[in-house]
Amino acid sequence: MAKIKLNKTATKAPKNWDKDATKKKLAVIQSELDELQNLLYAEGKHSILVVLQGMDASGKDGLIRDVFGCMNPQGVQVTSFKVPTPEELSHDFLWRIHEHAPAKGMIQVFNRSHYEDVLVTRVHRLIDDKTALKRMAAINDFEKLLTEHNNTHIIKLYMHVSREEQLTRLKERMSIPQKMWKYNAKDIEESQLWDTYMSYYEDVFNKCNTPEWNIIPADQNWYKSYLVAKLLRDAMVSLKMKYPGMKK
Amino acid sequence: MAKIKLNKTATKAPKNWDKDATKKKLAVIQSELDELQNLLYAEGKHSILVVLQGMDASGKDGLIRDVFGCMNPQGVQVTSFKVPTPEELSHDFLWRIHEHAPAKGMIQVFNRSHYEDVLVTRVHRLIDDKTALKRMAAINDFEKLLTEHNNTHIIKLYMHVSREEQLTRLKERMSIPQKMWKYNAKDIEESQLWDTYMSYYEDVFNKCNTPEWNIIPADQNWYKSYLVAKLLRDAMVSLKMKYPGMKK
Repeated sequence: MAKIKLNKTATKAPKNWDKDATKKKLAVIQSELDELQNLLYAEGKHSILVVLQGMDASGKDGLIRDVFGCMNPQGVQVTSFKVPTPEELSHDFLWRIHEHAPAKGMIQVFNRSHYEDVLVTRVHRLIDDKTALKRMAAINDFEKLLTEHNNTHIIKLYMHVSREEQLTRLKERMSIPQKMWKYNAKDIEESQLWDTYMSYYEDVFNKCNTPEWNIIPADQNWYKSYLVAKLLRDAMVSLKMKYPGMKK
Repeated sequence: MAKIKLNKTATKAPKNWDKDATKKKLAVIQSELDELQNLLYAEGKHSILVVLQGMDASGKDGLIRDVFGCMNPQGVQVTSFKVPTPEELSHDFLWRIHEHAPAKGMIQVFNRSHYEDVLVTRVHRLIDDKTALKRMAAINDFEKLLTEHNNTHIIKLYMHVSREEQLTRLKERMSIPQKMWKYNAKDIEESQLWDTYMSYYEDVFNKCNTPEWNIIPADQNWYKSYLVAKLLRDAMVSLKMKYPGMKK
């Protein structure tokens, strides 16, 4: 696999891409996803774990709404991982994650994930490179466990937003009343560390690549949601699921 | 409060109720709910707990889909309580429930709940009347705790389906391929115990009535979803929530 270079990867749809047609396609895929999720739940053989990463204001929340908001909430769980609590820190870094691994039949979305433990921690020098490497190996083992022992299909998504677009969005949080609650002065500070984040993200994409990461151009919400919905739809169709007959 | 008598309570919309107009109203309320949930999450002061009870095939799953499926999945959690595990049974009956009480800003739906511990257990004589009374008192205390100490607004819903409608739906699970996975031979056996269930449900409605139960006529899916959506919308509007300003 070729190494991913984020600054050479698009953050937007190709020029002249048809926005209106894409939105219509998204609506069709959303209803397909609704049906596929019902089938996943009914069959109860597979589980899906969506690992969602991206910088602040890269549109993770909106993506969850667009792609998973059209499904039965009973079959979808979203977990947002924040700064670990003291209890969580008194365990290995995957302990709090494992608890939220999806049961068969379920779709689990991680809004941020175990990858923060080799990203934000590394950017702020809370761990050294040797520890980061060991953690990435542990992550690979962990994901293999879920895949091989619970039929979990892991879909890794990186919301790839340009720095200019990020700054525009962070500024909106200071001026649009409905967005102010999302404002956090620290986001601007974190944004200063952009290049360091990018290099550690690239390291993750290259070292934790089974399955591979999907780098989603995320400057336009309509395009990003369409891409992810399509990707998820195709992944679910490939499972060749069937409604089971009556239990005996 | 007048005692609830289920066999004197409607399971359908009033005659000549306008189905098409109701469906249109539901669609409007769904988008209001979507906005209200966003506000609840942003404000982070209140939490909502929906306690959903009803006989098998009374349409609980469909209700969750209709009323909560239109909201951001990040702010809504659904927990289905099944037969307790050995570990859960080694604790008090509210232990496994408490874990899923909603955090501020969240909407939590209990698909079946702590009330099963004074319903199915009582019908099958796993507990005696004295224990049932003690449990109902404990439930009242527990709900008071959530209400007074975490601003939790509890909405209790009983999906009131007629026995004829229930039997029709259980039969569908034997003939419609997409519904067969829901079929469980035990549901028919449980249905034989209808009158006993009704009397213990009535006992719950009368003894655990802070807040009071909403008995939802549930023979028609469009009517039931409309009633619940409206009830939830009105409850959320009454909280007089506001988007907070920027964090300092």
